[in-house]
Amino acid sequence: MSADHREQQPVQGSRIDPHIGRYAHRTQGMVASEVRALFAVASRPEIVSLAGGMPNVSGLPLEQIGDMVKDVVTEEGPTALQYGSAQGDPALRELLCDYMSLEGIDAAPDDIIVTVGSQQALDLITRVFVDPGDVVLTEAPTYVTAINTFAAFQADIRHVGMDDEGVIPEELEEALVRAQLDGRPVKFFYTIPNFQNPAGITMSTERRAKVIEACERHDVLIVEDNPYGLLRYDGEPRPTLYSQGSGNVVYLGSLSKTFSPGLRIGWALAPSAVRAKLVLAAESAMLSHSTFNQLVVRRYLRTFPWREQIKTFNTMYGERRDAMLSALEAMMPAGCTWTRPEGGFFVWATLPEGIDAKAMMPRAIGARVAYVPGTGFYADGRGRQSMRLSFCYPTPEQIREGVRRLVTAIEGELDLRDTFGTTLAPPAGGLQAPAPDLP
Amino acid sequence: MSADHREQQPVQGSRIDPHIGRYAHRTQGMVASEVRALFAVASRPEIVSLAGGMPNVSGLPLEQIGDMVKDVVTEEGPTALQYGSAQGDPALRELLCDYMSLEGIDAAPDDIIVTVGSQQALDLITRVFVDPGDVVLTEAPTYVTAINTFAAFQADIRHVGMDDEGVIPEELEEALVRAQLDGRPVKFFYTIPNFQNPAGITMSTERRAKVIEACERHDVLIVEDNPYGLLRYDGEPRPTLYSQGSGNVVYLGSLSKTFSPGLRIGWALAPSAVRAKLVLAAESAMLSHSTFNQLVVRRYLRTFPWREQIKTFNTMYGERRDAMLSALEAMMPAGCTWTRPEGGFFVWATLPEGIDAKAMMPRAIGARVAYVPGTGFYADGRGRQSMRLSFCYPTPEQIREGVRRLVTAIEGELDLRDTFGTTLAPPAGGLQAPAPDLP
Repeated sequence: MSADHREQQPVQGSRIDPHIGRYAHRTQGMVASEVRALFAVASRPEIVSLAGGMPNVSGLPLEQIGDMVKDVVTEEGPTALQYGSAQGDPALRELLCDYMSLEGIDAAPDDIIVTVGSQQALDLITRVFVDPGDVVLTEAPTYVTAINTFAAFQADIRHVGMDDEGVIPEELEEALVRAQLDGRPVKFFYTIPNFQNPAGITMSTERRAKVIEACERHDVLIVEDNPYGLLRYDGEPRPTLYSQGSGNVVYLGSLSKTFSPGLRIGWALAPSAVRAKLVLAAESAMLSHSTFNQLVVRRYLRTFPWREQIKTFNTMYGERRDAMLSALEAMMPAGCTWTRPEGGFFVWATLPEGIDAKAMMPRAIGARVAYVPGTGFYADGRGRQSMRLSFCYPTPEQIREGVRRLVTAIEGELDLRDTFGTTLAPPAGGLQAPAPDLP
Repeated sequence: MSADHREQQPVQGSRIDPHIGRYAHRTQGMVASEVRALFAVASRPEIVSLAGGMPNVSGLPLEQIGDMVKDVVTEEGPTALQYGSAQGDPALRELLCDYMSLEGIDAAPDDIIVTVGSQQALDLITRVFVDPGDVVLTEAPTYVTAINTFAAFQADIRHVGMDDEGVIPEELEEALVRAQLDGRPVKFFYTIPNFQNPAGITMSTERRAKVIEACERHDVLIVEDNPYGLLRYDGEPRPTLYSQGSGNVVYLGSLSKTFSPGLRIGWALAPSAVRAKLVLAAESAMLSHSTFNQLVVRRYLRTFPWREQIKTFNTMYGERRDAMLSALEAMMPAGCTWTRPEGGFFVWATLPEGIDAKAMMPRAIGARVAYVPGTGFYADGRGRQSMRLSFCYPTPEQIREGVRRLVTAIEGELDLRDTFGTTLAPPAGGLQAPAPDLP
């Protein structure tokens, strides 16, 4: 190849990667975020970030936790610093049963596998169940990194619509029937029933029963992801799908939002045959989770007033949720709508007709506020008019200021729209995931 | 189905798993260990276990490490307990470059991804490169959980023979050519060049050059797994393949053997395009590793005399290696052979003609000694006459007693052989992996 010829080649990622011909097909489904650069900007101190889903761990009593982790090393060091089993520490699994009993789940420790956050549980489930082209059903919108994981295993991701009561049973039924007509196995329906990420919606009790009925009738597993369930600020708790189903639900739990994400303790509760497969998959994925972290969490659940700590978190997050909802109510322009979550971290806002939340990002950053555009929460390019606003990390005052800045950005876009027409970009299709390290 | 008819059904795992029709094809490659039950027995206190590959963490100064982990929480808690990036803490990655420089590696922090032990690095590499049926070349024998990982991604695992200088270049060349003739892409050659697990063999400097030359000529990646490299008890260090190659080597490191496996800190050092893919795969696999553990290791590498700690480990492990080699020399029956490792944790022993190491296990357990039969370290049923003996965990006295007990078991089998002929079971084929939580 002549030098001239080479100069005509476009210099792009795929051109300059000498390994490009070697990757597995699934690797094509692993996409870098197009808004990652914006997130780097969003972490600047002058920006009010309504983008991230980071819990506010500064609310934890660090001195006491420091003493606790020291005790783990000095009293249990030879165990804590050694390899453990792939299923996870048995005593921790017993304590996780107690934890889940707060949401009405009657679980056996042997049906639990401890994972690196519930994200790893989701990854192992996908690995164990999904062949390329298999259908995975999810709510629309849904958790961005779940989409990434399903895509990384080449799933055919199909969305099911939601309203204020959660997933719409008729749409779920239609998706199940359509997959059957297509001759494509539906491997599972993935749902976040409480304070959904990103929509902030909680599935009603009646809907839960209908979802279970439909999935059982079609012999389809349910994967119930419930990291926020105990972070409820008002309203009544709903029964878990796991406790209402009859063996067709894999339940995912996590201490990332109720204690600390830095320890990466999540888990799956699964029918025993499935649990056995997940353990085998975990062995080849990482041998075993950190024994040290498991013993830290074991000690935390045994000795720490963690129920009180969750109440403290709920007071704090509840105030932040209220700050966001009242700021939105007071300031958002006509034509904007948003959800009113009873718990969790997120509000889902939809902009007036003709306004593109992703196209608005540079203007918002200019106004020193960040959010996650809605497109990342769909596998099919939808969501351009929406955005996820999180209230977990900033203070109430920062939240009010953030909404004020957001409103100036929206008003700027409205002016633009009224002068030049829609700001909506043409549909792009495919995956447009934001950085998945912002859960 | 009548009750009578049901009674005739064999009650086996696959029969009673209601989810059996749902699993992905790859899940068939995830096999439970047939010797797991024996390992449970092997952990009884009256047994001398020469089976496990657990480092002797009781040699660590727990009081000092306890203070250190407390400081991480009280001084850096809001960071340590929060989510991190999927690539891993930047300052830790810089310190890992210093660590690798001890073996002559000149690395950039940006080319490193921190993983849950090097096992996760191996899993991510396989995920990124291997489609079902792709060829992965390994030494024969090789690390059991590497086999499990490659099998879980449906690789066509092909072994390359070794002698006392490591992998035999002619056999590697033959395997590379044969895959080419078969029209099957070789995705990588997996090697543990130092004190190999399980064979205890170190690849000679000359062989390293030949391996690099052959793989570069065939345009095949090398995955260099080096968890034991700094645990050398005599002889001269050899250059890493990474430092000798020209961009075709992915290097795996780990602090599990030189500090603590309970913290699960391993890493991959890879060409930057490959590293980027590994980070994407890690995001969907677990979002991020434990920030807490990374900050603990960061502080350990910054403030702790870890080079001295490795010297202390080397003195201890060297004595144990010597105890094992001299006991084998003094006691093993004629016809037995074994390797003489210059470092690491393992000796590979081969029994006299006609003796099956797996068939001998019950007798060995009866004599209160355990080892890993050789079959687990091959993907093709070979290794029945061999066993892995580890000297890392038991004391020199326990090692001598263990070898004494092992010799009584071998002598019992020799009597049996001399009376009834071979004890070798017919070849079984397929995967017969021991429990992978014994690295």
